[in-house]
Amino acid sequence: MPKTALLPTALAALLLPAISAIAAPVAAPAQPPPPLSSAEVLAQSPAGDWRALDPESTLLMELQGPRGPGQVLIELAPRFAPRHVANIRSLARGGFYDGLAVVRVQDNFVTQWGDPDGDDPKKARPLGKAEAKIPAEFSIPYQGLPLTRLPDVDGWAPQTGFVDGFPVAADPKANKAWLAHCYGMVGAGRGNAIDSSTGAELYAVIGHAPRGLDLNITVVGRVLKGMELLASLPRGGPNMGFYEQAEQRSAIQRVRLLTDMPEAERPALQVLRTDSKTWTALLDARRHRGGWFVHSPGHIEVCSASVPTRPVP
Amino acid sequence: MPKTALLPTALAALLLPAISAIAAPVAAPAQPPPPLSSAEVLAQSPAGDWRALDPESTLLMELQGPRGPGQVLIELAPRFAPRHVANIRSLARGGFYDGLAVVRVQDNFVTQWGDPDGDDPKKARPLGKAEAKIPAEFSIPYQGLPLTRLPDVDGWAPQTGFVDGFPVAADPKANKAWLAHCYGMVGAGRGNAIDSSTGAELYAVIGHAPRGLDLNITVVGRVLKGMELLASLPRGGPNMGFYEQAEQRSAIQRVRLLTDMPEAERPALQVLRTDSKTWTALLDARRHRGGWFVHSPGHIEVCSASVPTRPVP
Repeated sequence: MPKTALLPTALAALLLPAISAIAAPVAAPAQPPPPLSSAEVLAQSPAGDWRALDPESTLLMELQGPRGPGQVLIELAPRFAPRHVANIRSLARGGFYDGLAVVRVQDNFVTQWGDPDGDDPKKARPLGKAEAKIPAEFSIPYQGLPLTRLPDVDGWAPQTGFVDGFPVAADPKANKAWLAHCYGMVGAGRGNAIDSSTGAELYAVIGHAPRGLDLNITVVGRVLKGMELLASLPRGGPNMGFYEQAEQRSAIQRVRLLTDMPEAERPALQVLRTDSKTWTALLDARRHRGGWFVHSPGHIEVCSASVPTRPVP
Repeated sequence: MPKTALLPTALAALLLPAISAIAAPVAAPAQPPPPLSSAEVLAQSPAGDWRALDPESTLLMELQGPRGPGQVLIELAPRFAPRHVANIRSLARGGFYDGLAVVRVQDNFVTQWGDPDGDDPKKARPLGKAEAKIPAEFSIPYQGLPLTRLPDVDGWAPQTGFVDGFPVAADPKANKAWLAHCYGMVGAGRGNAIDSSTGAELYAVIGHAPRGLDLNITVVGRVLKGMELLASLPRGGPNMGFYEQAEQRSAIQRVRLLTDMPEAERPALQVLRTDSKTWTALLDARRHRGGWFVHSPGHIEVCSASVPTRPVP
């Protein structure tokens, strides 16, 4: 990994195609233009390719980690898991998560948070107005889904792409689509019964995408900001990463929907639209690398392209 | 993610095929036997499917992290990067790494260590008997490579599999094979010149496999033990994760080849052979999940299957 910058100069990238068009009207086929870098693509993005956060579907989690306080911003996916998202909204509004803890960090897998006493009916924190039993939401119909398709092959599913900023896998023949377990995706923990998740216990993927979990558990959203906090927590013990002592846990001080916060306190972020030309160009920039890279993969996968956010300009 | 065990009972897994063979000699096709779990496969592995560490190709790195001391065990890949591995051996023997530091942690990408003054010729630590310039070792010939092939499709390369415990990607038509940038793989940092890596600066992959780096940089080995230490370090600043202050760095106290350690102090570990039946069965166990899983992916990828180690029995 270089310490030097990875970017080709923007000037060179902009000038070369024009020069070859002028100089070589009847000569050998022109060289393909050097690929734009991701930074160049983003710098050229029109304002309309960005969208605001939906405050009714965005959670701010305040964490007290071993290195101090930090914020994790989570975007929920009501299109894919409406019942879970409704439940999570109720739980957040009822203060259910406030004072709970990170209970599990398994290396190269997940960071999980919830009620440390959740398995003990006598001690478990009540869910308030949230429902104690909701159906599993492992997939939704593929038909009619506004999927920005990836042409690239994926070993785990016949089709992949993006919807509303989320990485999606799909099986068109089975008319199913689902959120893919990529880095930073957030799911709802369940027991052995498929309908045993309520959103009271959540996890985020912190390692190589465990796509084998796809279609086995309800995915509810993704971390927009603050993944580095969840991913750098101390790992738990040999029992699937669950912490063995209460003092190892990081405290979840408060979880709020942005709607329920004063507007001035809400994070002022925009998210790149995945149905935009900028997103398509960004994927191309990742497929065809210049600068430091001497070999271009010519490929991208649904879990190796995370959707950018930026401060509201 | 469940708190309950994920494993089907071993008894059920062993009995069911026998029962269906007895009860249904002329009836409908027998149900396929329930898949063995990974734990069951490992429990049944013969001793010959495991190998010892090669002390001449295994490094023990002693790290002083923010939460105290820890050990990282790294297996080098002389078949894939002979010049770099020879150089790393020289650097370790000359004490080059002792007292250096982790200089960079970029979330979902890499943890990198080396000489914080390496870019300043006046202050850089001398390489001792190691070579200051060696060729890039991005790939080796595919022909003749004892590759345990994965039948599963991979988007990044025409062929993948395992050699000597390492995840490998290959292009048979181009007669090239290379180590894949999976979680826990260790590479040799370089500048813009492809032959600017020496092994003095190393990195480990701590996030989703950045396969776009394949064929762009020399991969020298993999972390056998201690990944959780490298992956849970505090992330660095916005400049590609480089720490901005010296006090953020974790110290590398000592790096030794096992050969140069008293035998009694060497980690007593075995590694599963990737040319063994146990490894093939383990991959099958990951493709076809039972127990908690209600959907089996029927697929595995080269970066989602890490090769197990165990204490010497």
